[in-house]
Amino acid sequence: MPELRHDPIQRRWVIIAAERGRRPADFMPRREEPEPKFCPFCPGHEEKTPAPIRVYGAKGPVGANDPWLVRVMPNKFPALMVEGELDRLAYGPYDYMNGVGAHEVIVETPDHGQQLPDLSLDHLALLLDVYRERLDDLLRDTRLRYVMIFKNYGRLAGATVSHPHSQVIATPVTPRTLSSELRSAMDHYHLKERCLYCDVLAQELAEGVRVVAENEHFVAYCPYASRVPFEVHVFPRRHAADFRHTGKNRLLPLAAILRELLARMRLALDDPPYNLLFHTAPNRDSGAKRAGYWSTLDFDFHWHIEIFPRLTQVAGFEWGTGFYINPTAPETAAQFLREVQPGGGA
Amino acid sequence: MPELRHDPIQRRWVIIAAERGRRPADFMPRREEPEPKFCPFCPGHEEKTPAPIRVYGAKGPVGANDPWLVRVMPNKFPALMVEGELDRLAYGPYDYMNGVGAHEVIVETPDHGQQLPDLSLDHLALLLDVYRERLDDLLRDTRLRYVMIFKNYGRLAGATVSHPHSQVIATPVTPRTLSSELRSAMDHYHLKERCLYCDVLAQELAEGVRVVAENEHFVAYCPYASRVPFEVHVFPRRHAADFRHTGKNRLLPLAAILRELLARMRLALDDPPYNLLFHTAPNRDSGAKRAGYWSTLDFDFHWHIEIFPRLTQVAGFEWGTGFYINPTAPETAAQFLREVQPGGGA
Repeated sequence: MPELRHDPIQRRWVIIAAERGRRPADFMPRREEPEPKFCPFCPGHEEKTPAPIRVYGAKGPVGANDPWLVRVMPNKFPALMVEGELDRLAYGPYDYMNGVGAHEVIVETPDHGQQLPDLSLDHLALLLDVYRERLDDLLRDTRLRYVMIFKNYGRLAGATVSHPHSQVIATPVTPRTLSSELRSAMDHYHLKERCLYCDVLAQELAEGVRVVAENEHFVAYCPYASRVPFEVHVFPRRHAADFRHTGKNRLLPLAAILRELLARMRLALDDPPYNLLFHTAPNRDSGAKRAGYWSTLDFDFHWHIEIFPRLTQVAGFEWGTGFYINPTAPETAAQFLREVQPGGGA
Repeated sequence: MPELRHDPIQRRWVIIAAERGRRPADFMPRREEPEPKFCPFCPGHEEKTPAPIRVYGAKGPVGANDPWLVRVMPNKFPALMVEGELDRLAYGPYDYMNGVGAHEVIVETPDHGQQLPDLSLDHLALLLDVYRERLDDLLRDTRLRYVMIFKNYGRLAGATVSHPHSQVIATPVTPRTLSSELRSAMDHYHLKERCLYCDVLAQELAEGVRVVAENEHFVAYCPYASRVPFEVHVFPRRHAADFRHTGKNRLLPLAAILRELLARMRLALDDPPYNLLFHTAPNRDSGAKRAGYWSTLDFDFHWHIEIFPRLTQVAGFEWGTGFYINPTAPETAAQFLREVQPGGGA
């Protein structure tokens, strides 16, 4: 069973997943090994992965053995286990709980060589709908506080399989970055009765210099205090705390802005590795409710997507202090991303 | 002038150092380029680097042109500038200040091929004394809130020059990781009138399973909630908030435990890249004093050193959420580091 351990100094939970079993010798060959030729995510190899949770065709859910467009399955090497109780304990000055949660893989397309900006808008909208569905399903489990949907693209961004896929990790605690955001948002709301993110969005739209792309429903911009070169955030114009409540009619515009952004990044930065993360409302029906958290969440939080191209080596200074040195001004990055012209009329 | 920009959502300051001048094209060649043959830190090349701040021989400070053991100079490509006023401003929903601070390089030895565990104990103690001296000097500047002493070893840890060197970055704000530590420490002290770190140290010494090395004055252990495999912290046994107050007689024991640790890591993990960071008291004579911070600092904070081998790729999940998945239990890591036998009787 993986363990969740809490550090009282950094006030941070860490997953100790020794089941993933890395002994010192496993770290020795740091040379890059070529990816094996056999791809477990390609059609025809379905028996090499755990039984799927859901399988989707163009018209919605299909049977486990039908042709598919998007496939959701448990991670074969999960960081957290779906069964069991949390068994919260004090352990000396530390805290402990069992590594209960979920870890899923979403194969985004049967085509090994496609990437997100190559998908049709309908296919990309289906994928976004699957994300929404996974949130809905997992948040019914009141042991879970947060469901993180993310994508690592490229080896330098942590991807170990090149076949297009996203991941879902559901955790029994809210990750530190999220809880600190939720706290800022709540404080701002209590002080001003306005959404902090709506204030930021208004500033970005008024200035315009950091905006990369926009459509009727969504805006993408490089944040004023970008941590890394070419960091981009995507926000819905209309205030909404929970990605799950995004109407079907908003999925196509979201697919469109995402595809445009990723196409621009691919062209401007020569197909960079990147991480893409959803920031959405935590589980209000979990123990957090008993603890009285997030009473104003619907008003104070604003879901969004964060994309980090991994162009620079994150050095010790940044990583150990949380203090980032960014060598490219976001205004320069946004201008560059606006000016490239991805083909195919995206 | 570099800029310091504050993100109200993450409550994080970021340094935008566009002077370091990375245009999109600079990020394109992601293939590893070989390091140039010419080393600017080797003896005889002193004119290729900025004029030194201090130069040390075996018996202490020497002249700028004398033979040297340790050499301190301004970074040729500084992330922060030493001259000017902060000019704090609100900028829409954001905050701004000028990128005032200091960025120095400490060349640790004239010998290009030596590494920290190869230095004599006297040499290593001299280096630690230089760290102490840089803290003393820089903390006299009341514009500066924190002085971070750190070392990136190996390319994967962010080092761009292989000649052994450390860095010093002095910032007009306390880095996020440190301020959150200071807050935990203060809260714990107010609640219990005990030092949080002393409590943790007592637990580690009582259990013993995560201890890697110890001597009369210092203890090194893998933290209970280690973020990465083989993370090690070094603590003074006796409570002390400020590394500057470490007596001369403690520098040799600190050199000894550091040398032993790094030798064990080198042997156990095949010379891994790593980051080493000092966590010490912030500047109490800065504006923080006016703001009434850190009144109990001497009682609640405990300086220490954190070492992170960079064995795993930090993926998007960890980096974007602050929630780490560590595949090696710290108990396993500590046992492995204890069991290897570095040569030379270290």
